[in-house]
Amino acid sequence: MISFKQRDIISILHFNKEEILYILDVTKRMEQTDYSQILKGKVLSVLFFEPSTRTRLSFEAAMKRLGGMVIGFAESGATSIAKGESFSDSLKTIEGYCDVVVLRHYLEGAAQLAADIVNVPVINAGDGSNQHPTQTFLDLYTILKTKGILEGLKIGFLGDLKYGRTVHSLAYALAYFGAEMYFISPPNLRMPNDCMEELKKRRVTCHEAESLQGIGKQLDVIYCTRIQEERFADPIEFEKVRGIYRLSKPMIEGLGVKDDLKIMHPLPRVDEMDESLDGTNYAVYFDQVRNGVPVRKAILAAVLGATE
Amino acid sequence: MISFKQRDIISILHFNKEEILYILDVTKRMEQTDYSQILKGKVLSVLFFEPSTRTRLSFEAAMKRLGGMVIGFAESGATSIAKGESFSDSLKTIEGYCDVVVLRHYLEGAAQLAADIVNVPVINAGDGSNQHPTQTFLDLYTILKTKGILEGLKIGFLGDLKYGRTVHSLAYALAYFGAEMYFISPPNLRMPNDCMEELKKRRVTCHEAESLQGIGKQLDVIYCTRIQEERFADPIEFEKVRGIYRLSKPMIEGLGVKDDLKIMHPLPRVDEMDESLDGTNYAVYFDQVRNGVPVRKAILAAVLGATE
Amino acid sequence: MISFKQRDIISILHFNKEEILYILDVTKRMEQTDYSQILKGKVLSVLFFEPSTRTRLSFEAAMKRLGGMVIGFAESGATSIAKGESFSDSLKTIEGYCDVVVLRHYLEGAAQLAADIVNVPVINAGDGSNQHPTQTFLDLYTILKTKGILEGLKIGFLGDLKYGRTVHSLAYALAYFGAEMYFISPPNLRMPNDCMEELKKRRVTCHEAESLQGIGKQLDVIYCTRIQEERFADPIEFEKVRGIYRLSKPMIEGLGVKDDLKIMHPLPRVDEMDESLDGTNYAVYFDQVRNGVPVRKAILAAVLGATE
Repeated sequence: MISFKQRDIISILHFNKEEILYILDVTKRMEQTDYSQILKGKVLSVLFFEPSTRTRLSFEAAMKRLGGMVIGFAESGATSIAKGESFSDSLKTIEGYCDVVVLRHYLEGAAQLAADIVNVPVINAGDGSNQHPTQTFLDLYTILKTKGILEGLKIGFLGDLKYGRTVHSLAYALAYFGAEMYFISPPNLRMPNDCMEELKKRRVTCHEAESLQGIGKQLDVIYCTRIQEERFADPIEFEKVRGIYRLSKPMIEGLGVKDDLKIMHPLPRVDEMDESLDGTNYAVYFDQVRNGVPVRKAILAAVLGATE
Repeated sequence: MISFKQRDIISILHFNKEEILYILDVTKRMEQTDYSQILKGKVLSVLFFEPSTRTRLSFEAAMKRLGGMVIGFAESGATSIAKGESFSDSLKTIEGYCDVVVLRHYLEGAAQLAADIVNVPVINAGDGSNQHPTQTFLDLYTILKTKGILEGLKIGFLGDLKYGRTVHSLAYALAYFGAEMYFISPPNLRMPNDCMEELKKRRVTCHEAESLQGIGKQLDVIYCTRIQEERFADPIEFEKVRGIYRLSKPMIEGLGVKDDLKIMHPLPRVDEMDESLDGTNYAVYFDQVRNGVPVRKAILAAVLGATE
Repeated sequence: MISFKQRDIISILHFNKEEILYILDVTKRMEQTDYSQILKGKVLSVLFFEPSTRTRLSFEAAMKRLGGMVIGFAESGATSIAKGESFSDSLKTIEGYCDVVVLRHYLEGAAQLAADIVNVPVINAGDGSNQHPTQTFLDLYTILKTKGILEGLKIGFLGDLKYGRTVHSLAYALAYFGAEMYFISPPNLRMPNDCMEELKKRRVTCHEAESLQGIGKQLDVIYCTRIQEERFADPIEFEKVRGIYRLSKPMIEGLGVKDDLKIMHPLPRVDEMDESLDGTNYAVYFDQVRNGVPVRKAILAAVLGATE
């Protein structure tokens, strides 16, 4: 029997297929049913050592919409940590005030460290460039909701695949569901070798390319990420790929894509997706960001034992 | 039939006399009746791109006292906007987490832009030097409550009438109620010509003066604003008017004012009103600021459809 | 009959023995009974003019867990005070939005000033190096809870006794309960003369020493505070005492202490208590910090008249 009660949510890699499906199923119930009292009496501490509006506000909205309460801080400037208190002592203190912790930190590994220190469940809301598991759950939920299925999809990942933690996490999770994956990036921003090895071990059919040309028309989903100019040593190299990766309505239609193609993006975007896409049926990135609330409701309720 | 459901509150100029009276009537009910559950399940996002304690806290108190929930930020430093996300994308994201938005922004027009972007109601809590409609509603409510009527009053506006947005908005609104208006300011801080034209079009009897001498005794209300020394090119000019506009108990009594004169101020004040006034029956500025809560309750409840 | 309704909580010195015992008794009830609705409809303003995570979050958790609501700010940067508004006007404004104020300020006397200005109860959450009464209540509650009694204990105060406000306040309060006190500090950080005089007037048996040697084995409680290196003119002097005051498991056991000795610390600590102590039965400092929630629940409920 699947139980999330009192579990930490540190990395998507800690969950098997059944556990992922459980969270997605609870998410669906969160959208269909009014659970406005199930976390009554519970207190969430949101500890954001680096700012993140969308993640923080969606966790707070999720907790409050389930009847829970929220305390915490949006940046570590106004905290005792600024006075030199150890991370461990801060966590042990705050643990005494709440029932669950959501932690955002600029250092990799901070979430696991926090989970080792405190007895209440810790949910990782991003630790440096490492993991952001609730993002992956909401990405999966968006795919499930907009495509109707998770099994056997052709997914194209586009942009900065080297540094994009959301891409790595989502690819690993989709490996459970027989996805065929296309990795489209400039040569110097390809998926890391260890990611590719891991995906092959998980029997994922992988393809790599530098452009969507000839590939776009096969895809069920394009997962777009931001390419940062500063990653390129040579600005001429950046100029070469810029045009290819700037998605727009005419560019997407020129690829001969499927009618039911869905384009996702973890946001924030800068200029890699033109606003001409926003009104199309392809664009699901604003639905995606809104799925953050039911997904985080599901995770909060699950680790607090309210879904059993 | 008057309905505010799902309407944006961007400028007092968007509302006719009946609509203004409707909000004032709902405000009165908010003071008389316990509506502590009528916004249960509703989430307000307070998005303050520039700081404002009194406005933010009174909106938050209003929402919570009606049973609603609040998420948001008190300054934009700790947000994704600091990472370069577009205003439009930020708004579209946050829209998905809440039922109503209260926006404070340093740029004129930001509130209207936000209202054009999102589908939930947007309430303008100040956009640059442009509009701050809930201030005008609470000014009107304070006049109604302390004078018993809105019709046919003699109102003196005092201080910086050129840059004071609260003065312009309140004057336009009072034009519906047959007010006779006295504008008292130094020559270089007179009411802008377009404002005076508009008031004349609305058949308001207007007078201009440089001092309260001879005028004070006729007034029902003095609406005082802050004169900023830096507006004056010549410090000697500032010194000339400073004394006239610094209200104190002896100065007011020396004018031979009516016993039931009421003195208002949008606050914060610096030195334009002496503390000797605070304990008098004239002073209603702290009542005025406290009227912010019932007025904002009324507006939140109205745009969320809870008053119908 | 004891009543705290509408009273300000500015200094522990304002309360007699019966009043202190009343708050400790209410605290115990707060731990034993679910009072999750008794502050329903009440609004707390937390006004933190200097940051303090543990104090602010425990007050917020306390208020919310009793069914109350919270508004306020965690630092004064994002407030009208930054615009030059007077402290008095700010307080008079905020008073209109709430039922109780918790104030943290960097200036001594700010809490008393606030209490003189507003009509709602003001709770001092630390005013400069002056008073922090809820800390003393939670220190007392921790002693009572871990020792079973308050009367007749031998208490050692260790570290910076000159600048440590928590030490002064706790010593005064314990004087009601026949405590015998040992003050262990370097010569230049001894208890101030006026504190010692006051304690003698209250018939407290006091001892002073520079080390725990020979004293440790008699103590029921060690109350440890942080020694700040910068207080020493001569770094060599600091080095001399550093070793003596760095508590660790072997050092404590080497003193031949009682089995039921309890070691307290107001936190944050830096290096004056080794982590080797954390797992021992002596260490109660994390229990102590967690007692902040029931103690603050008790105080909030008491001043809001909910305990009568």
